[in-house]
Amino acid sequence: MTIVRSASFTAVAPSVGTFVPVSAADVTITSGFWADRQSVNASATLSHCHHWMERLGWIGNFDKVAGGGAVEHAGREFSDSEIYKLLEALAWESARSGDEWPERTFREVSARVIAAQQPDGYLNTRFGSAGQAPRYSDLEWGHELYCAGHLIQAAVARARTAGVDEFVEAAIRLADHICLTFGPDGLQGIDGHPEIEPALVELFRVTGDRRYLDQARLFVDRRGHGTLDGGETPPEYFQDDLPVRDAAVLRGHAVRALYLAAGAADVAVEMGDDALLDAVRTQWENTVARRTYLTGGMGSRHEGESFGDDFELPSDRAYSETCAGVASIMVSWRLLLADGDPRYADLIERTLFNVVAASPDAEGRSFFYVNPLQRNLPGVEANPDEPSPRAASSQRAPWFDVSCCPTNVARTIASLSGYVATTDEAGLQLHQYVPATISTSLPDGRRVGVSVATGYPFDGRVTVTIDDDSESPWTLSLRVPAWAIGNATATIDGRSLPVDGPIVTVTGAFAAGTRIELDLPVTPRVTTPDPRIDSLRASVAFEAGPLVLCAESLESAPIPIERISVDAVSRPTAAGGDGEPGAAVVRVRVNDYDATSWPYGSVDGGGAHSERQVELIPYYRWAERGPSRMRVWIPASN
Amino acid sequence: MTIVRSASFTAVAPSVGTFVPVSAADVTITSGFWADRQSVNASATLSHCHHWMERLGWIGNFDKVAGGGAVEHAGREFSDSEIYKLLEALAWESARSGDEWPERTFREVSARVIAAQQPDGYLNTRFGSAGQAPRYSDLEWGHELYCAGHLIQAAVARARTAGVDEFVEAAIRLADHICLTFGPDGLQGIDGHPEIEPALVELFRVTGDRRYLDQARLFVDRRGHGTLDGGETPPEYFQDDLPVRDAAVLRGHAVRALYLAAGAADVAVEMGDDALLDAVRTQWENTVARRTYLTGGMGSRHEGESFGDDFELPSDRAYSETCAGVASIMVSWRLLLADGDPRYADLIERTLFNVVAASPDAEGRSFFYVNPLQRNLPGVEANPDEPSPRAASSQRAPWFDVSCCPTNVARTIASLSGYVATTDEAGLQLHQYVPATISTSLPDGRRVGVSVATGYPFDGRVTVTIDDDSESPWTLSLRVPAWAIGNATATIDGRSLPVDGPIVTVTGAFAAGTRIELDLPVTPRVTTPDPRIDSLRASVAFEAGPLVLCAESLESAPIPIERISVDAVSRPTAAGGDGEPGAAVVRVRVNDYDATSWPYGSVDGGGAHSERQVELIPYYRWAERGPSRMRVWIPASN
Repeated sequence: MTIVRSASFTAVAPSVGTFVPVSAADVTITSGFWADRQSVNASATLSHCHHWMERLGWIGNFDKVAGGGAVEHAGREFSDSEIYKLLEALAWESARSGDEWPERTFREVSARVIAAQQPDGYLNTRFGSAGQAPRYSDLEWGHELYCAGHLIQAAVARARTAGVDEFVEAAIRLADHICLTFGPDGLQGIDGHPEIEPALVELFRVTGDRRYLDQARLFVDRRGHGTLDGGETPPEYFQDDLPVRDAAVLRGHAVRALYLAAGAADVAVEMGDDALLDAVRTQWENTVARRTYLTGGMGSRHEGESFGDDFELPSDRAYSETCAGVASIMVSWRLLLADGDPRYADLIERTLFNVVAASPDAEGRSFFYVNPLQRNLPGVEANPDEPSPRAASSQRAPWFDVSCCPTNVARTIASLSGYVATTDEAGLQLHQYVPATISTSLPDGRRVGVSVATGYPFDGRVTVTIDDDSESPWTLSLRVPAWAIGNATATIDGRSLPVDGPIVTVTGAFAAGTRIELDLPVTPRVTTPDPRIDSLRASVAFEAGPLVLCAESLESAPIPIERISVDAVSRPTAAGGDGEPGAAVVRVRVNDYDATSWPYGSVDGGGAHSERQVELIPYYRWAERGPSRMRVWIPASN
Repeated sequence: MTIVRSASFTAVAPSVGTFVPVSAADVTITSGFWADRQSVNASATLSHCHHWMERLGWIGNFDKVAGGGAVEHAGREFSDSEIYKLLEALAWESARSGDEWPERTFREVSARVIAAQQPDGYLNTRFGSAGQAPRYSDLEWGHELYCAGHLIQAAVARARTAGVDEFVEAAIRLADHICLTFGPDGLQGIDGHPEIEPALVELFRVTGDRRYLDQARLFVDRRGHGTLDGGETPPEYFQDDLPVRDAAVLRGHAVRALYLAAGAADVAVEMGDDALLDAVRTQWENTVARRTYLTGGMGSRHEGESFGDDFELPSDRAYSETCAGVASIMVSWRLLLADGDPRYADLIERTLFNVVAASPDAEGRSFFYVNPLQRNLPGVEANPDEPSPRAASSQRAPWFDVSCCPTNVARTIASLSGYVATTDEAGLQLHQYVPATISTSLPDGRRVGVSVATGYPFDGRVTVTIDDDSESPWTLSLRVPAWAIGNATATIDGRSLPVDGPIVTVTGAFAAGTRIELDLPVTPRVTTPDPRIDSLRASVAFEAGPLVLCAESLESAPIPIERISVDAVSRPTAAGGDGEPGAAVVRVRVNDYDATSWPYGSVDGGGAHSERQVELIPYYRWAERGPSRMRVWIPASN
């Protein structure tokens, strides 16, 4: 088999839609915030994940199955999926960098995976072998189709970046087996954890085989009829309480809900099912308006890792799983491609900077699983030699018993170049601001090329230079984030451009060297919450550009964060100097609350207080300096 | 065997302490709030519990074990404990009322229980029989010693009210088996769920056999050393993170933490272990000051049914399990007897009215398992024919898969007469205000008798009439609840008594007919929260006497409770008339919050609003009129 590295690839490739994603092969992120993270991902995170899964026997599970005989499975029932997400990340990374290690590791690990495939295409190390429960005997919790979905996603990444190899062929055999087993005349089941749905649609996009699309639609339509029996776990946890097309908001387990929404959007787009797409759109709108944290994080409850009710958004108990952030980007990206509305790119940006970037530490070898907006107690350092409980550590941990987040971050960062820009008949749209060179074709075949220079998110100036003379006019569109509307300015070769909404456009047969400058106001600002959010009432947060800021109390530099408040007149100012990029300072009250014997009385908390200045750092950087307490939202002084 | 009904009994009988509980046999609650509930408990709740446990085969489990052969156990692993709590309630009720049904039912059910006892004293229907896991093979989750503890508590109730019968002898054999199995040279284990600890101390108090006390102390001291392996469940859940005597606050699973604290208090009192008692006292203080709801409810997290961090007290996600309320009363009552501090009786009162009384409906046949202080969505009616999931129903449910709460309420209400009054060398102390006759002996043998007349909690006047001429002076002490201090007044035969603290005392050789009147201000009042409670910031609650009030939105009379706020000048007034006793009305703003696409911005929520009056009802009565939304804490208008 000859592998041909593809010249054009993207993480999601709809057949129709408002925008066409610009291939990751056409976008090179050259420096800055995300280039640094892609570099750390490549040099540290991928091998870190590989190391842990080898050490814990999760990759070894495939060798055991391939070897025949009784299989004692290592790890949780969904451990296969972690290997697949790593494979997906390796596929993207091999294409992005052309480096040898990701390519070699992809081949080695995928070969071990393939060796465990059964003659009929089934592939899972936790079910169906000697000494194990039978295949599909626990659809609620077994995660077999979930794992299969991630395998297929890895194969889609491989097919798009390198063409069809043995691993892609294995994925096709697995997908065929699933269509046969769960088809219209087969098992009328669904998996407790969605993921097979978007995977099958993406495999349809790669192969053109409509059976996969039809099967994805079957899975989407089967859900919501209460066929999963979770015992004390309610049907809503699995999104099995209500058909996708009848639901008005996301609910239940956040990652499941978002993966399902991504799959439903894929099915809707490919089938021209406007009602289904509209249902997903409505769910996105209501979820963003009522069930999303300032960071873009989703999932308010530890219980069931789930969305809460409307406006139930506690900072301290925010679950905001890293994987839910990744999954939210999956949904928003699909809706952006379908609709072209920049609000989807706004949420992607917010989630990238404040959830995805918050998870890994600077070295890329330890991760947050949950991303609360407040920590009242300093945590303890995670054990560096053992997997940590998934949501217990208040510090980043190198690995988890349920270790979905590190590999999900890895595959997202490795493929990030594919989320920067899109095209349509009119021209090129820039959605995320990174220093980059972009050289691509419009749908009609015309070539366009631009270079982006920016210190974003710490500096709000984005300079786009046209790289090639244009023969005919085309339109460059630049997103203006919602927080910048009204204060952003733009110029083309020094002449002012009108900026009065969420998009700045400029059309022309541009000459090479033409400079378009967009200035976004990233000075620190004060943000207030919807009054219906009980846990944030009479509090304010601080943001700077797309970055959420927080106050952190370190053992070495303690701040009594449970007793501070901010006067209405206190405005944060950029810290400047050599400190943390993006940091700010603000003057706060330190209130002298007495210890009380009963915390409810007839007097308010006003009283003696002192004042001091506190530093606000970007949220994504918290807990990097040892055990700490932290808060994003700070009470407003009376 | 001859059963002699005891003339003197109480739920807890320490050998030493500041106060001696007045026997429930010496207190007759004659009418009013709690007499009504004792009547409903007797006529409905006890037979309701008996019916469900028979129907679900939980009592039948004992017949299966007695019958030999393989036992397929019905219900959860702790179902035996529900039968034991019912037996305890029946024992108290038989003594309280002298009725035939509770006595006959006690004998019938206890005979079936005894028949399942093994020759060596072991007694559990879930472990150790053919086809079952071996005894003590799952200390973390098996609940064997927890069940044994509740059996022993039922036997203690029986022994105190009726003397030693075959059931009590069976409990002694079980306790002997436990001491042998888990003694100093035996299994060094503890149960995942405390309860055996207070039970063994109480059995020591009944039998005088010190082995039970020593074993209880062993169990208390063994906990806190991380010997329980809960997998992803952290040691704190089981209070196995820290020895009892080293802990500063209650944490982990609330019912477990409180049962353990009760047992530790019992051990400390009987062993004169001041350091241990002081640890429990400190835990109570910190828990009440930082981890307790306005209702007295405890447990802020659904996750692990557990206490949260300090000041983590969300209204909507309050777990506040009914059983935690019962267990909190167990702890406070023990500390009250040990220390004599009226603050313990204050918390008992608050918890009785706002947790224990809130659980059952007026008919005594459906129950709350969790007691949140806010419901944002109207719930659905529980299925009347099936057990409900324990924490999912927002309406009271007739029975639960985990049905600990109904029987815990039943045993508490049946034994309530024993929590009304205590004595010491000086005289008689009244802790709870109920219409009652009390005729008892002081520790030195002098007889004292009083009658209490009151419309409490709806009317604040408490009239105590001395029933017998006294030969020598004694002291009557009346508790002044914390919320009444400063506004309470008292008289003796019309003459003013000084009221300047939490206790009013009057000493004399009283003549029969002497009237002491205490007037407590039960007009509705405004309560504000500790400013460190994020979820209650800038909100107020309303209370009237010991009753917490709430606003309830019914389908038939909707109130937009997510959009109301209260001006600082709005004071609630008693509703009066023929409505719900204790109800009040208050004027509120109804704010016109717009739907928003992103709930965080730079403007506050002030804007257009209308005004209206809303009814506030006692919290314990909410959800009695069909599916509803409810809130205790209401935002203060700017």
